[in-house]
Amino acid sequence: MRVPQLRLALNQIDSCVGDIASNAESVVRWTRHSAERGAHLVAFPEMVLTGYPVEDLALRPSFVEASRAALRSLAARLAREGFGTLPVVVGYLDRSATAQPKYGQPAGAPQNAAAVLYGGEVVLSFAKHHLPNYGVFDEFRYFVPGDTMPVVRVRGVDVALAICEDLWQDGGRVPAARSARAGLLLSVNASPYERDKDDTRLELVRGRAREAGCTTAYLAMTGGQDELVFDGDSIVVDRDGKVVARAPQFSEDCVVVDLDLPAAEADAPTGVVDDGLRVDRVVLSEEPVPAYPPELSGGHAERLDDDEEVYSALVAGLRAYVAKNGFRSVLIGLSGGIDSALVAAIACDAVGAENVYGVSMPSKYSSGHSRDDAAELARRTGLNYRTVAIEPMFDAYMGALDLTGLAEENLQSRVRGTLLMAISNQEGHLVLAPGNKSELAVGYSTLYGDSVGAYGPIKDVYKTSVFRLAEWRNRSAGERGRTPPIPENSITKPPSAELRPGQVDTDSLPDYPVLDAILELYVDRDRGADEIVAAGYDRELVTRTLRMVDTAEYKRRQYPPGTKISPKGFGKDRRLPITNRWREAD
Amino acid sequence: MRVPQLRLALNQIDSCVGDIASNAESVVRWTRHSAERGAHLVAFPEMVLTGYPVEDLALRPSFVEASRAALRSLAARLAREGFGTLPVVVGYLDRSATAQPKYGQPAGAPQNAAAVLYGGEVVLSFAKHHLPNYGVFDEFRYFVPGDTMPVVRVRGVDVALAICEDLWQDGGRVPAARSARAGLLLSVNASPYERDKDDTRLELVRGRAREAGCTTAYLAMTGGQDELVFDGDSIVVDRDGKVVARAPQFSEDCVVVDLDLPAAEADAPTGVVDDGLRVDRVVLSEEPVPAYPPELSGGHAERLDDDEEVYSALVAGLRAYVAKNGFRSVLIGLSGGIDSALVAAIACDAVGAENVYGVSMPSKYSSGHSRDDAAELARRTGLNYRTVAIEPMFDAYMGALDLTGLAEENLQSRVRGTLLMAISNQEGHLVLAPGNKSELAVGYSTLYGDSVGAYGPIKDVYKTSVFRLAEWRNRSAGERGRTPPIPENSITKPPSAELRPGQVDTDSLPDYPVLDAILELYVDRDRGADEIVAAGYDRELVTRTLRMVDTAEYKRRQYPPGTKISPKGFGKDRRLPITNRWREAD
Repeated sequence: MRVPQLRLALNQIDSCVGDIASNAESVVRWTRHSAERGAHLVAFPEMVLTGYPVEDLALRPSFVEASRAALRSLAARLAREGFGTLPVVVGYLDRSATAQPKYGQPAGAPQNAAAVLYGGEVVLSFAKHHLPNYGVFDEFRYFVPGDTMPVVRVRGVDVALAICEDLWQDGGRVPAARSARAGLLLSVNASPYERDKDDTRLELVRGRAREAGCTTAYLAMTGGQDELVFDGDSIVVDRDGKVVARAPQFSEDCVVVDLDLPAAEADAPTGVVDDGLRVDRVVLSEEPVPAYPPELSGGHAERLDDDEEVYSALVAGLRAYVAKNGFRSVLIGLSGGIDSALVAAIACDAVGAENVYGVSMPSKYSSGHSRDDAAELARRTGLNYRTVAIEPMFDAYMGALDLTGLAEENLQSRVRGTLLMAISNQEGHLVLAPGNKSELAVGYSTLYGDSVGAYGPIKDVYKTSVFRLAEWRNRSAGERGRTPPIPENSITKPPSAELRPGQVDTDSLPDYPVLDAILELYVDRDRGADEIVAAGYDRELVTRTLRMVDTAEYKRRQYPPGTKISPKGFGKDRRLPITNRWREAD
Repeated sequence: MRVPQLRLALNQIDSCVGDIASNAESVVRWTRHSAERGAHLVAFPEMVLTGYPVEDLALRPSFVEASRAALRSLAARLAREGFGTLPVVVGYLDRSATAQPKYGQPAGAPQNAAAVLYGGEVVLSFAKHHLPNYGVFDEFRYFVPGDTMPVVRVRGVDVALAICEDLWQDGGRVPAARSARAGLLLSVNASPYERDKDDTRLELVRGRAREAGCTTAYLAMTGGQDELVFDGDSIVVDRDGKVVARAPQFSEDCVVVDLDLPAAEADAPTGVVDDGLRVDRVVLSEEPVPAYPPELSGGHAERLDDDEEVYSALVAGLRAYVAKNGFRSVLIGLSGGIDSALVAAIACDAVGAENVYGVSMPSKYSSGHSRDDAAELARRTGLNYRTVAIEPMFDAYMGALDLTGLAEENLQSRVRGTLLMAISNQEGHLVLAPGNKSELAVGYSTLYGDSVGAYGPIKDVYKTSVFRLAEWRNRSAGERGRTPPIPENSITKPPSAELRPGQVDTDSLPDYPVLDAILELYVDRDRGADEIVAAGYDRELVTRTLRMVDTAEYKRRQYPPGTKISPKGFGKDRRLPITNRWREAD
């Protein structure tokens, strides 16, 4: 018997939370593109219609109803535009029709759902079975789990459907797809980027395909949402775990792949299979596609190397934040130091140097090289540059108050913050905060001073990585025959806040390589003080560092969101009480 | 047969997150007090040993182990101090000994647990069965649920034990206590305060007692933790739902009550009862207490009326935040307006007028009455008062930048924020932000300006309630023959930000009674635009208001924590994406 064929189109696209109309428009546009390429089955990411994650919008009945209504309109619209016979899988926000109101259950019983649109109708819908409630996820707060194993028969192939976490956790839809004897497992996802997660994800999908016993397609989202970045990297593997196709990272794409798949079985099981999941079968078309020579292999996009991958994530996150919040330009205080220089380079790559505004705000403690290095950065990148000296404002405050020590140091930083916000209010730029993860961890920053800004592009980047990324960016420019954006001197000089004469970071902090190593163990890996000492670090240094981290929570809380690149940073994935007397190292 | 008696001591006390040593010390002190009053069974609130809520500290193995070790030490210490024969129920943080590591499950399988300490040992421990994961709670993120029905036999009475949510949700330990034929159901809690929640809680406990078929004791926590306030109000009801005793609101107390209880049954069930819960029985003492005349009734503390209750919550929240974060004094910018006046009055009640510092920071747009009203507030309350004119700093910025309109308005507010932070840094006061819930909802405030501060005492109070509370506070002073703290003129004059000549709030906002009514429907009750219009509000006004709320998320995110008094406010109980194009009223 002939093996049925299917041409599958995975639309790895961006989506904006709350902009249902525009998201629906994207689905139509990419469906048209998929149809033009001859697809037999078209898919879009998890909750593409509402954007992801919607957080408490899930608890607002008017928003849930808007999503449901938009899904029905979209089904009708696709048919009107001539795609009625093309099944389209679309993620959206739904509510359970069966869940009874219950104390402790999300109000209105919302569901993280996906539907198959066909013939102008919603022919099948289902909700995510496994709900993630860790790290940046809070899905038990928002959703009621789905309890079906959806299987849609398309041109004689049984396609089992799943949503994201359904593949990450054991049990549920992966074994159920095997029990239901599916010929293809299609999972739609909005899985946020993390450093090295692409490798984890690849191994996951390969393992799950073997477990499900069928070709498995993992469709990812791309773009950015607040601190989250979606890196694309959709994957198709066969039942033996061999990679069939892999999409590019950090860009929208339509992966079209011709697959040979097993024919649907006439006696395929119905009823309840694994984990209490009830098989929900819909037959759209029994007749296989007439045999055709496979033409489209989906491709194997080139992988970015580690530094380029992280840098690309930072650019993607910033670009999305600026655009989706309705800004066109950004504003950065340029100190001549490496943090603001890297932020400026990222900003130029994200929104174009012509939309990047830099201000040098020297004080009497600023070194000559600070101004020179800031001006040099502007010259190299072509960003818009100006200088505003802070002395008159600083002197005015000092004339009214008797300030010394840290109060005087912080004042300089806050005058700069106020200047940036004034320019932002006057000219409409979005202010970027230059803080890195090492500073944020130990609280080495001024609240309402250098922490001012709507977005912190390198908030989740340790200082040692700041250096590495700056070097990578310069080297990469060199390799392409371009001007390296970051002045060498910003990379090589000792880091300093320049808030008092001769100050350098190491007056207050351990050397960055040691500091960052301790921080990674404590912050990212939840190791205790004794374990960190056992890993080879000086006890006194560990005690001092951990105490700084334990007492900086309040400052971190007030820091703006920034691109998340590590498994555990500061933001939604790490939540600590402010009022907290726990001192790890005491 | 004689009915066994028990003298139960419910220690409704405060606890500080992370301060395990000091929390253990409190348990010893209050156990001594309970023993002196002749108690036979002593109880402490949910997670009293670690404080509540510990959030991500639950995922840190060193913290979990510290809690477990402290519990064992506490058991030994209590015995050493002569309380070895007195069973003491103590909430703490534990980990499951049986849960297998599993993707998606909290790392280390932590548990929100309680233990019975007796004879120098931990004789019984159990974990919360129902985990709340809504509003301010995220317990699925942190805890693995308990699966036993703990029953401890004390002087011939079977006491079933439960933790907080076990009573709020249906099923589980309440019916299981009946199935296990318990003579007393004791629930330990850390249930955060909300307006009118005391009434809900009373009806809950009465209903659950009838359901459990036995006397039910509900022991509450008191104090404050970040935005949460614990209001005390412990309750004991009999099996018919009749209130036996009720503790005071917002203060530490030891409620001691003599109870007549049914004798333990020899054939009481073992094994699994309701909801999969396995009965876990421990017999400490079979012999009933020798008969004694009941002396202690636990008392019925007087209820606060609604305004006093809310005002007391605001005072308790602020007092806890200041003290537990290691501050002694607070600093407030005094505009002469009602918001800062109410904040000052609350602060004087919380930490004493001698520890409250007020600064008037007039500009050229400040009216004469602003300075007079601020000075009058200082005179009436006795707080420390000074004046710093902002003109020199304002002029210095204006000399460097060409600012107009909103940028010029915001600048004044930011100069004030910088002044407050400078004084705070120099003198060590904690800055209070004066924003109310109406302003915060619509974004009528300046980021890094009037939003500056470590704590916002009236962050969750609508403007109309600000007026009501100010009037209540003045009236209450009058009734006690004291000087009303808030100048009449601050209450009666039209609210104004005074950032341009002749400005009043109603230039930008609807009248507060209408605004607050719309906000309550939208923010607190999740009503949609159409429903709000249907409730009798002008469509144009609703559209304008909702649009302001929908676009102010970023400002709210940067606002400091404040006392939570309503079921839904801004903070942990309401989480929205910043990047969000949803416009409810479009």
